[in-house]
Amino acid sequence: MAIKKLNKEKVILGLDPGTSVMGYGLIKTEGSNISLLQFGVIHLQKYSGHELKLKKIFDRVLSLINDYHPDEVALEAPFFGKNIQSMLKLGRAQGVAMAAALSREIPITEYAPKKVKQSVTGNGNASKEQVAAMLKTILKFSQTPKLLDASDALAVAVCHHYQGGNEVKSAKSWKAFLTENPTRLKS
Amino acid sequence: MAIKKLNKEKVILGLDPGTSVMGYGLIKTEGSNISLLQFGVIHLQKYSGHELKLKKIFDRVLSLINDYHPDEVALEAPFFGKNIQSMLKLGRAQGVAMAAALSREIPITEYAPKKVKQSVTGNGNASKEQVAAMLKTILKFSQTPKLLDASDALAVAVCHHYQGGNEVKSAKSWKAFLTENPTRLKS
Repeated sequence: MAIKKLNKEKVILGLDPGTSVMGYGLIKTEGSNISLLQFGVIHLQKYSGHELKLKKIFDRVLSLINDYHPDEVALEAPFFGKNIQSMLKLGRAQGVAMAAALSREIPITEYAPKKVKQSVTGNGNASKEQVAAMLKTILKFSQTPKLLDASDALAVAVCHHYQGGNEVKSAKSWKAFLTENPTRLKS
Repeated sequence: MAIKKLNKEKVILGLDPGTSVMGYGLIKTEGSNISLLQFGVIHLQKYSGHELKLKKIFDRVLSLINDYHPDEVALEAPFFGKNIQSMLKLGRAQGVAMAAALSREIPITEYAPKKVKQSVTGNGNASKEQVAAMLKTILKFSQTPKLLDASDALAVAVCHHYQGGNEVKSAKSWKAFLTENPTRLKS
């Protein structure tokens, strides 16, 4: 079910990798026009074993890439977690999702959750429900099932579009974080 | 430069993924016999940008897999770091290295650094120099340049062999860790 794109069209894949659920959202843009292609979640709880979960993330992201041929990937990447252990697991989930995109030479841009909310709703502290409601308006769709799980992923794709797509330097937010938090930099 | 393997031979790729240097070590085993194939390091400091570093890890691990056809991958995986930020970065480096193996359906087993030292030298608190000296004896080689950087990776491959190879359930150490540290488990 590979899609065909016109010359000026661009497909953006938004990803919100987690260790129990991974959200994804795909949009098509042409100039300032933006439309919904697909969104959903990959449930990882059912897979026993950390390694199998990572394998599923890799396979599913690759299969989304094969089906939709995204030109760019946008990643919702929290920089803080509750504890060291969960950050290592989250980092691995992000890593395998990124590897799937990198293996196809697709550029990745990262956004902090607050930036995504700010970009989509105008409010960096918006609730998930507010983000979802705004996405429905922007992308003109009415489905609600599972939306909240996938809305973060869809939101980061929309955010990437609003931010000028790949004009923004990738990994900017990472560098910005380190610049703003020099004491947290481990050489 | 792909290698040929006899029926009973097994190739183990040991990896020590880091964010500035990634070590790798390859051994060939046949029953209790064990010999050195290759070891080295991938320097990541020269690549500017976090994403490019991850891409290089993925590409290089995949190229080691293409060249040596390892049957199993053993990963040195620390469970603790100095701060949350560095653990997220380490998790990503581990994740992309694992993704390269997972993309080729190669089973991965993780070992904590202490377990590796214990298995190779008999002492879980051995120094890097002691581990390297023991590896030289076990694997009958005399090179020293860059050895200390790559020795952890070679050590985890040898550890995996001593632990019975893939007989050990993969991700055991992760589960064991969570069992021993229930308060660190984030559902």
